[in-house]
Amino acid sequence: MYLGIDIGGMSVKCGVVDDNGKILAKKSIITTLGDYHKTIAEIADLCRDTAKEANVNFDDIKAIGTGVPGTVHQGYVSFAANLNWYGVPYTKELESLLDKPCFAGNDANCALLGEWIFGAAKGCNDCIAITIGTGIGTAFITDGKLLLGNRSAGTEGGHIRIKERGKKCGCGRYDCWELYASTSSLLERTKALAAAEPDGLTAKIVKEDGLSGFCIFNAEKQGDKSATKVLDEYIDDIVDGLVNYVNIFRPEKIIVGGGISAQQRIIAPLEEKINAEAYGGKNNPHVSVTTPVFFNDAGIIGAACLAIQNNG
Amino acid sequence: MYLGIDIGGMSVKCGVVDDNGKILAKKSIITTLGDYHKTIAEIADLCRDTAKEANVNFDDIKAIGTGVPGTVHQGYVSFAANLNWYGVPYTKELESLLDKPCFAGNDANCALLGEWIFGAAKGCNDCIAITIGTGIGTAFITDGKLLLGNRSAGTEGGHIRIKERGKKCGCGRYDCWELYASTSSLLERTKALAAAEPDGLTAKIVKEDGLSGFCIFNAEKQGDKSATKVLDEYIDDIVDGLVNYVNIFRPEKIIVGGGISAQQRIIAPLEEKINAEAYGGKNNPHVSVTTPVFFNDAGIIGAACLAIQNNG
Repeated sequence: MYLGIDIGGMSVKCGVVDDNGKILAKKSIITTLGDYHKTIAEIADLCRDTAKEANVNFDDIKAIGTGVPGTVHQGYVSFAANLNWYGVPYTKELESLLDKPCFAGNDANCALLGEWIFGAAKGCNDCIAITIGTGIGTAFITDGKLLLGNRSAGTEGGHIRIKERGKKCGCGRYDCWELYASTSSLLERTKALAAAEPDGLTAKIVKEDGLSGFCIFNAEKQGDKSATKVLDEYIDDIVDGLVNYVNIFRPEKIIVGGGISAQQRIIAPLEEKINAEAYGGKNNPHVSVTTPVFFNDAGIIGAACLAIQNNG
Repeated sequence: MYLGIDIGGMSVKCGVVDDNGKILAKKSIITTLGDYHKTIAEIADLCRDTAKEANVNFDDIKAIGTGVPGTVHQGYVSFAANLNWYGVPYTKELESLLDKPCFAGNDANCALLGEWIFGAAKGCNDCIAITIGTGIGTAFITDGKLLLGNRSAGTEGGHIRIKERGKKCGCGRYDCWELYASTSSLLERTKALAAAEPDGLTAKIVKEDGLSGFCIFNAEKQGDKSATKVLDEYIDDIVDGLVNYVNIFRPEKIIVGGGISAQQRIIAPLEEKINAEAYGGKNNPHVSVTTPVFFNDAGIIGAACLAIQNNG
C-alpha cells in the first residue's frame, strides 16, 4: 500500500493506492501558501487522515510519493513558482514527520509514470506525454526511463520556440509552443474570432454562454466556417510541436492529456498528421497518439508510482 | 585494441584505436556505392589493411565499431540516404567476413560517444552535441545513456520547426532548424547580402575569393556593418534551437562541432545567450558550451567507442 500526493496551487490531494494502481480512498485540503513548514505539516496530517479513510493501518503504508508543480531534484524542490517554494527540502521534512520513505518529482513526470506503469503507455520503451492546459506540460520516457536532465531541470517542453511572431512568454522567451498550443491560446483565438466577426455564430455563442473552451466547438457544430478555420490552425500548431518531439525522441506513443483531450475534434486528426510530417516518413516506425487512462486521478496515481518505483 | 570505421558518402575511414582512445594508424578508401555486399567486403579488407598498417595482429582486435550516416538499429541499417542503403544487415555481414564482434550506430551518436568517453564531455551525465554542416546533426546523452528512440529512429534534431517562413526542407517539412542554422544557410545569407549590396565589402570579397564560408567573416573584419548584422542573425538562429534543447534536456554541456566551430565569432557568444534565454534563468543549473576535442578523427574514435562500450 502506498500514498500518492498531488500538490497543486489550489489544493493538495492524497490517495491510498494499492500495488495495482487502484485508489482505495482519497482526500484533499486547500493548499496553504506561505510558510512551507506549515504546508508540509498539513500534508502529513492529510496522509494520516487518508489512510484512516481507507481503513488502512498507517504502518502498512510502504512509501509515499508526491507530485509537485515545479522542479524537484532528489526530494528537494528547487523551485515551484505557483507554491512560491524555492529551495524547499520537501521529502526530508515529510519523512521526519511520517517516518516513511518519501519521494517527490515533477507532477507532469509523475503523471506519465502512472500511465507508463498502469495506463495508456504500459509496455512502451519510448513514450511522451503532453498535458494541454493553461500552459503545456511535457514528460518523456526514453528507453524505459524518465528524462530528468541536470539537477532534474529538464522537460520544460512547453517552452520550445516554434514561431516568430514576437509574442512574449511568461518564461521570458518569445513564441514558445505553449503560447500557441495551450487551451489559453484556443480561448484567445475564440475571443479574437468573436471580435473580428461580431455578427458571426462564435460571437453569438460567446455572448450567450460566456467565453469558454466549448464555444468554438459549438460554433463549428452549428456551421461556423470561421470556427473550423480557427480549430484547424490550432490543431496544426499542436502538431508542429509534437512532430518536433517525434523527430527528437521517436516515441512509440504520445499521450495527449488535459481537459481538451475529451474533444475528439482535436485528438482524432493528430496521429495521421504527425506521421505524415515526421522525419523519414514510412521508413521510420509509426507513432500512435492516445489519451490518458487516468484523468482526475492521474496526479495521485502517478505520485504513488514514484513511491512504487523507487521503493523497489 | 579496437577498430573504428567511419562511413561517409565520399570515403570510408578506418582506424586502430587503443583502450585510451588513441589512434595508432588509419587508412581510408573511396566509398563504392551500389551493391552493398561489395561495399562491406571492401570495408572488411580495409579493416585488415589498417591493422597491418598499425603493426597490430588482427587477432588482437577485440571488436569493431562503425558509424553510419543514417538510422542504424541493432546493427541493421534501416536507411542511409547518402549510401542508398535501405535495410542492410551491416554488422551481421561484416561479422561473417571478419569473425569479430561488430557494432554499428548513427555517426552523430558515435561522435558524441567519443567525446563523452574520451573528450569534451567526459564525466557529464547529461550532454548534447550538434554538428553544424550542410545540415545539422544532433546527439543526446541523458543520464549517461545515448538517446535512440523506437528502433533507434530518434535524434533527428536538425528537423525541429522553429520558424514560419514557408521554406521547404529536404525532409518534407517546412522551416526546420537546419535550414537556418546550418553552414548552408550562412552561405545563402552571404550570397543574399552580396546580391543586395553589390557595391559592398561582402560582394567584393565574394567576387575576389569565390563564395565560401569565410567571406562573411572577412567582410566583417574589414568593417562591413551588414556582415555583422547577418552574422548576429545567424547566431540567434543557432541559439533558438539550442535553447529549445536546453529546456527539454537541461544538459551540463553542449558540444558545438562542424567546420564552423573554428570560428570564435560564432562559438564565443553562445554560452551567455543560451543561459540568458533558457527556462528558469538562474534558478536552473548553468549550461556550458564547448567545441569538440576530436575533429577530423571524431568519426573513427567515436565508432571505436561503440565497440569499447558494447564489448564490455
